[in-house]
Amino acid sequence: MTASAQIGVTGLAVMGRNLARNFARNGYTVALHNRTAARTREVIEQFGEEGEFVATQSPEEFVAALERPRRLVVMVQAGEATDAVIREFAPLLEDGDVIIDGGNAHFADTRRREKELREQGIHFVGTGVSGGEEGALHGPSIMPGGSEESYASLGPMLEKISAKAESDGTPCVTHCGPDGAGHFVKMTHNGIEYADMQLIAEAYDLLRQVGGFSPAEIADIFRSWNEGRLDSYLIEITAEVLSHTDAATGKPFIDVVEDQAEQKGTGRWTVQIALDLGAPVSGIAEAVFARSVSGHADLRAASRKLAGPRPHALGEADSSAFCARVEQALYASKIVSYTQGFHEIAAGSEQYGWNIDLGKVAAIWRGGCIIRAAFLDRITGAYAAQPQLPSLLADKRFADEIAAAQDDWRQVLATAVTQGVPTPGFSSALAYYDSLRADRLPAALTQGQRDYFGAHTYRRTDRDGVFHTLWGGDRTEVER
Amino acid sequence: MTASAQIGVTGLAVMGRNLARNFARNGYTVALHNRTAARTREVIEQFGEEGEFVATQSPEEFVAALERPRRLVVMVQAGEATDAVIREFAPLLEDGDVIIDGGNAHFADTRRREKELREQGIHFVGTGVSGGEEGALHGPSIMPGGSEESYASLGPMLEKISAKAESDGTPCVTHCGPDGAGHFVKMTHNGIEYADMQLIAEAYDLLRQVGGFSPAEIADIFRSWNEGRLDSYLIEITAEVLSHTDAATGKPFIDVVEDQAEQKGTGRWTVQIALDLGAPVSGIAEAVFARSVSGHADLRAASRKLAGPRPHALGEADSSAFCARVEQALYASKIVSYTQGFHEIAAGSEQYGWNIDLGKVAAIWRGGCIIRAAFLDRITGAYAAQPQLPSLLADKRFADEIAAAQDDWRQVLATAVTQGVPTPGFSSALAYYDSLRADRLPAALTQGQRDYFGAHTYRRTDRDGVFHTLWGGDRTEVER
Repeated sequence: MTASAQIGVTGLAVMGRNLARNFARNGYTVALHNRTAARTREVIEQFGEEGEFVATQSPEEFVAALERPRRLVVMVQAGEATDAVIREFAPLLEDGDVIIDGGNAHFADTRRREKELREQGIHFVGTGVSGGEEGALHGPSIMPGGSEESYASLGPMLEKISAKAESDGTPCVTHCGPDGAGHFVKMTHNGIEYADMQLIAEAYDLLRQVGGFSPAEIADIFRSWNEGRLDSYLIEITAEVLSHTDAATGKPFIDVVEDQAEQKGTGRWTVQIALDLGAPVSGIAEAVFARSVSGHADLRAASRKLAGPRPHALGEADSSAFCARVEQALYASKIVSYTQGFHEIAAGSEQYGWNIDLGKVAAIWRGGCIIRAAFLDRITGAYAAQPQLPSLLADKRFADEIAAAQDDWRQVLATAVTQGVPTPGFSSALAYYDSLRADRLPAALTQGQRDYFGAHTYRRTDRDGVFHTLWGGDRTEVER
Repeated sequence: MTASAQIGVTGLAVMGRNLARNFARNGYTVALHNRTAARTREVIEQFGEEGEFVATQSPEEFVAALERPRRLVVMVQAGEATDAVIREFAPLLEDGDVIIDGGNAHFADTRRREKELREQGIHFVGTGVSGGEEGALHGPSIMPGGSEESYASLGPMLEKISAKAESDGTPCVTHCGPDGAGHFVKMTHNGIEYADMQLIAEAYDLLRQVGGFSPAEIADIFRSWNEGRLDSYLIEITAEVLSHTDAATGKPFIDVVEDQAEQKGTGRWTVQIALDLGAPVSGIAEAVFARSVSGHADLRAASRKLAGPRPHALGEADSSAFCARVEQALYASKIVSYTQGFHEIAAGSEQYGWNIDLGKVAAIWRGGCIIRAAFLDRITGAYAAQPQLPSLLADKRFADEIAAAQDDWRQVLATAVTQGVPTPGFSSALAYYDSLRADRLPAALTQGQRDYFGAHTYRRTDRDGVFHTLWGGDRTEVER
């Protein structure tokens, strides 16, 4: 077999297949491999006309079909399946070859694999790929980690197949940083996506229950929001979902869907890792837990009779003002949610020495991925203006917007808690905001309690040092 | 050396030393061992008169001093230090001997250790010990896991040294379940402790900033609460901390303590494990993140000028009504927080086949530990009345209390969000409560979005099956 392919894809389920087609459509010769050869044949039969494919039957044949340095994209399930494929292919490769893992791997696994393969002279590129099936085919947002050298060889190809930002045509791909940086960025992307979706869900719920709008009317509201600063893929598809009518019943589609949200692992990981990093991502945590609560049908059934107000719709005159307030609350909460997500990326970058460029991360999320939004242009702008920005909230424009939004935000929440509409995301975002701006937090009491029951010591506001009060004794203070 | 000791303690830092003294004071002969023998001598010198101790110099001597089956309590740092001690002692032991780990180990480590030692014929008892130094000495709450057989040999001794519940004198110890059950229960205890402390901190903050009370006045309020249903160790020590005056400045102690709360690992673990188990513990998560936010001094410094209201104190007439409302909000939030914590224990028990008796867990937390409270008697009562209680909120008495509290709870939150006082714990608890009782949650929208962008499918309310709408096509629905 002649080594004629610039890239190979092994694992031809829908994501792998679509990525392969995307490469081929962009002029690359793509070697294909799948554990069961029937699927490879199927891809050639269905899509063979789209570009140059080399169908291969065995790992050896697959590797032989690739130009050096070889670039193998692995598109199999995260976890053991990925390790198995690596074990199968690594011995067939040579110094400088590149294995790209395009699945949703945990970044800690990616770090381990990168290290093991580096010792064998092989580059391992853990790569986030966002945008689902459609993105993979038409242009995803791509978040590769790994060595500089691997990016030199791989980057131009990824830039070609990636989404392009609508505003300036920039490819939605950047070298995130060494080893696990790419998968870490992708994980956090998904965490932010959880938070975005939860905030949208709360906005919908408020508009429905308090605003008194129908799903079709709310679809129109989201459509109008999509013309403004909330312009984003998730707002756009919210309108699509809400305006859809169920053919079987004639009811709004949203009303026939079971209200139990499911989840895969990445939202959960984002919170777990944030806890290890000391990065407060309370909004993402609330979003993950909100899905979890919704899924506990037994618990909910046992709780429906708990006391509380039933929300009542506002009159028509008030409802349009309420609608504007909800937009403010949603936007302000969204700023907080991105602030928290970018904090986590900064903390991970610091912890693992990745040197991630936060502005570039925002830039490559502008197209191709689920959270793509006009908003991200502004995050890029904020970091461009001030690369050492300690937090998105420290950006003047975001601070001004939140200043303008916060009265409405507070009013919406006061209404929600009074009327009994659950708003874990909106509430958590405001609590974070008010905590950050507080002169003093009651954390001083927490420290006092900890010193009392566990001699955990405390610091003082007026001088350096670590102190303990002899609570069980004469209550004098000793320096530790 | 004659084998004369019923129990041995290795690791004589303050926790180990106090536990050893507790055993000796209760009539047991206690073998002592420490890596550096000087510390062993020191304990004998200082406390030798308190009971029968056998000072030993080497692991061999220590083991030889113990009656069969040997019972060795390991009181060293969690993690590698514990493994090192086990590696040192296990080869010296015989079939049926028992190693007790009384540190704050992660339950997954305890499961691993238990399995390894079981294969060597040794019982391993991962044991939660709560109550800090004082508890260890005067009677802690003890949460042992491990085999039935180990508890038969060890239980009576633990019952003797444990705290006794104030209301009925029952020892605060129970066999939690196999392998990691004890450390899991202890971990969740600590998670609940984080939430309790956060809720108390918010109550204090509201009373101070909105109620307009001084720390000394708030101490009195907590003292009066401690006479009622909130009667608990944490409320009691809150009053002590708030009424304390700093000798150096003459100011209230609380005002000279740096408002940056620190943390150790167990609160974080509680949330991380809950995420894996699908148990929503949003209140504990908010508590852990609130500490984290407080500690980010840089971020807070960069955020102090963010727009928002400055809280203003109510007039005197209103403030006493407000105070009563805050008590309701605190109590209601506390019920939610324990509901979430017990949910996690139930989920862990289910996942690992531990068969934990939730009522007994509440019972052994009534004395000796940090979260000890009159309240726990009622949780025990709730589970006694209905062992299969799906949630604490399903208990009529708690449901009634929360019904009576919820108007005030909502009013307090409306005030907090309007005045800009951060209440992540109170807010999160209410959102959880309102989510559980909701007829419909906007999770249906989340499912619709997930189906739209990722073909993740959804269920319908009106018939079984898993469905997908062809969003990119003619929007017909297909069954998957």
